[in-house]
Amino acid sequence: MSTQTKIDDVEFFYLKIPEVLDIGDGSQDALLVRLRAGGYTGWGECEAAPLVSIASWVCPMSHSACKPVSASVIGQPLESVADIRRIHNLVRANSMDLLQADHTLSGIDIALWDVLGKRLQTPVYRLLGYERAFPKVPYASLLFGDDPQDTLSRALKVRQQGFLAAKFGWGPFGQGTVGQDEQQLRAAREGLGKDGILLVDAGTAWGDDVEQAELRLPLLESADALWLEEPFESSALSAYATLASRAGKLRLAGGEGCHNFQQAKAMIDFAGLGYVQIDTGRVGGITAAKQVADYARDRGVSFINHTFTTHLALSASIQPFAGMEKNSLCEYPADPSALGRELSKTQLLPDGNGRIQLPDVPGLGIDPDPEAIEKYLVDVEIQFAGKRVYKTPSLVDG
Amino acid sequence: MSTQTKIDDVEFFYLKIPEVLDIGDGSQDALLVRLRAGGYTGWGECEAAPLVSIASWVCPMSHSACKPVSASVIGQPLESVADIRRIHNLVRANSMDLLQADHTLSGIDIALWDVLGKRLQTPVYRLLGYERAFPKVPYASLLFGDDPQDTLSRALKVRQQGFLAAKFGWGPFGQGTVGQDEQQLRAAREGLGKDGILLVDAGTAWGDDVEQAELRLPLLESADALWLEEPFESSALSAYATLASRAGKLRLAGGEGCHNFQQAKAMIDFAGLGYVQIDTGRVGGITAAKQVADYARDRGVSFINHTFTTHLALSASIQPFAGMEKNSLCEYPADPSALGRELSKTQLLPDGNGRIQLPDVPGLGIDPDPEAIEKYLVDVEIQFAGKRVYKTPSLVDG
Repeated sequence: MSTQTKIDDVEFFYLKIPEVLDIGDGSQDALLVRLRAGGYTGWGECEAAPLVSIASWVCPMSHSACKPVSASVIGQPLESVADIRRIHNLVRANSMDLLQADHTLSGIDIALWDVLGKRLQTPVYRLLGYERAFPKVPYASLLFGDDPQDTLSRALKVRQQGFLAAKFGWGPFGQGTVGQDEQQLRAAREGLGKDGILLVDAGTAWGDDVEQAELRLPLLESADALWLEEPFESSALSAYATLASRAGKLRLAGGEGCHNFQQAKAMIDFAGLGYVQIDTGRVGGITAAKQVADYARDRGVSFINHTFTTHLALSASIQPFAGMEKNSLCEYPADPSALGRELSKTQLLPDGNGRIQLPDVPGLGIDPDPEAIEKYLVDVEIQFAGKRVYKTPSLVDG
Repeated sequence: MSTQTKIDDVEFFYLKIPEVLDIGDGSQDALLVRLRAGGYTGWGECEAAPLVSIASWVCPMSHSACKPVSASVIGQPLESVADIRRIHNLVRANSMDLLQADHTLSGIDIALWDVLGKRLQTPVYRLLGYERAFPKVPYASLLFGDDPQDTLSRALKVRQQGFLAAKFGWGPFGQGTVGQDEQQLRAAREGLGKDGILLVDAGTAWGDDVEQAELRLPLLESADALWLEEPFESSALSAYATLASRAGKLRLAGGEGCHNFQQAKAMIDFAGLGYVQIDTGRVGGITAAKQVADYARDRGVSFINHTFTTHLALSASIQPFAGMEKNSLCEYPADPSALGRELSKTQLLPDGNGRIQLPDVPGLGIDPDPEAIEKYLVDVEIQFAGKRVYKTPSLVDG
């Protein structure tokens, strides 16, 4: 008798804090994925609009290349890494014209690696071919303050917390005058001190306007920033390349908007990036992120995770480059929402040297704490042609 | 007292034929958009998964750059073309991290141009700056048959129907051996005759595998194909460029997967395309499509529409290059589903010379026929935290 392991069940949980604010904090809600196969349970997270991603799991087929994500997942054999890649490619082919599918696949793919790691009693980074996970230097990822004084306080605080590096982004940066941006950068540098690593995230503020970005280059040089992140929209490859050629020792960083391997490859090939930043919860999961990490290494571009939410997302986003010793920096959600903090009991906390280390345990090593987060669960229901196609499942008793 | 026109209402209608088949026919369902402003009604269509696109209209905010599309549309002033561009950019900024938003915006943007044209008593192509709409030579867009004999019959039929050009795609092409593809191409050429224009669509069959595509180049040359469409995934720019350099007089075509202007620009800049194919229902509507058309013209690449569904979508997709006389070809849904055929009473039918002409009437000139298509309307309901956030509106009495 065959005892082949198959994917038995995939559940989606829409979690949110009671009041979501109109700020650049992506940890205010979460779409958690629970996947069961052969008696094991894996977890993943989509860094994506939860309701829309749920709809892409349950929607009816539109045509042969626009199927719901579920059509390519439920019942699939899951015995090996090759099965994960096969399922990944199947979703991408069958849901090619369903735009949101890449974000939905991301959380599922993460859960697939987690469950396979648990079944094979192996950490995910080892399934990916790495012998060990090197410690990473976490940079605290923060929003710019509403004014320079606020930014200064935040920068002082992260140094007190032991972080050696910090990234400031969004908020008022790039939205006002060059002079205002200069004050913000000075405050960030002052708070971090001379030896702190300063990273700056423009949050696509300048669309594809190279001149607007170029006006900030002297300020960024004065503030000794290591990189400028997302000056432009993710696909504005020519604008990136032009700015990169004028940026001196400042490196450009980007890539969080990529929702598949090919887009990230195109950025590496044509955008003049110093750092390619990949969110495993958006790019198609660990499978696609590892492809990007390998390609970036071969092209001399530094791979780094994009993570602003939970420690489950953090573990998933570090696994793809865990074994790359040279890529020592990693993004770290330093000030997440209560939901972000409470999602898991296990957390990746900096050690005495200010570094974090992936746990040497099967899977991702970060299981959500259903009892703690049940209070954030939202009830969602979708009906199609009189039939209920989705209802929020039970998180605790499930 | 101000009498400024504002967007009063936007409604989404999920239409489908009773039985959607697992074939590459995108006309089996449709997401229709009805937009009301200042007493006028405009219509648009998303070439997108309907349920998922509806969810992206009504979903709750996740953070400042992940808002529902509705947040940037309802109540917005709509007096001029500048307002449409402003709304377009607002959606893209406020919903930057909501992947599906670009597809949803597409149908809304189309409806915005339609309603503004009606209010200003002007065809959309004139609002876009064209003095006139040149006639286009429609190519019949068809699926390859299951076998070469079937493909031959289809090719003979389109010539009998008066089409001078035809595109064959999907079905078995690229899925089997080179020999099988050769037989399919021979059958298509035989049916079209020596003077017919033959276009071939590989439907991304080869991922980013240049060698697999290259094996077909001699066959495509023998069959005297004008272009090879989508040999690879949309963002596989390097693979496109490499194949283009080896393709001789065969041109590469691609771009239907682009969901914003920057992605299409990157394809024009780096993929070595001869033809950039834009679906107005996916790329962000008429606003983004016109940006692509202008950029393509400046770079010597031919712009052409991608349309496989209704005559509303066809009009919307031709408007952006209606005034470009040199770009004489246009894609034409020659064999749509009953829904595609019945959506509108007015249709863009070929004249005695086998050419089609946009109507010289206000807006897009193609209004859906609610009474005829009500039978295809599906009832959808979405509830969030106990509150109904979407229910299919009435199409006929609305």
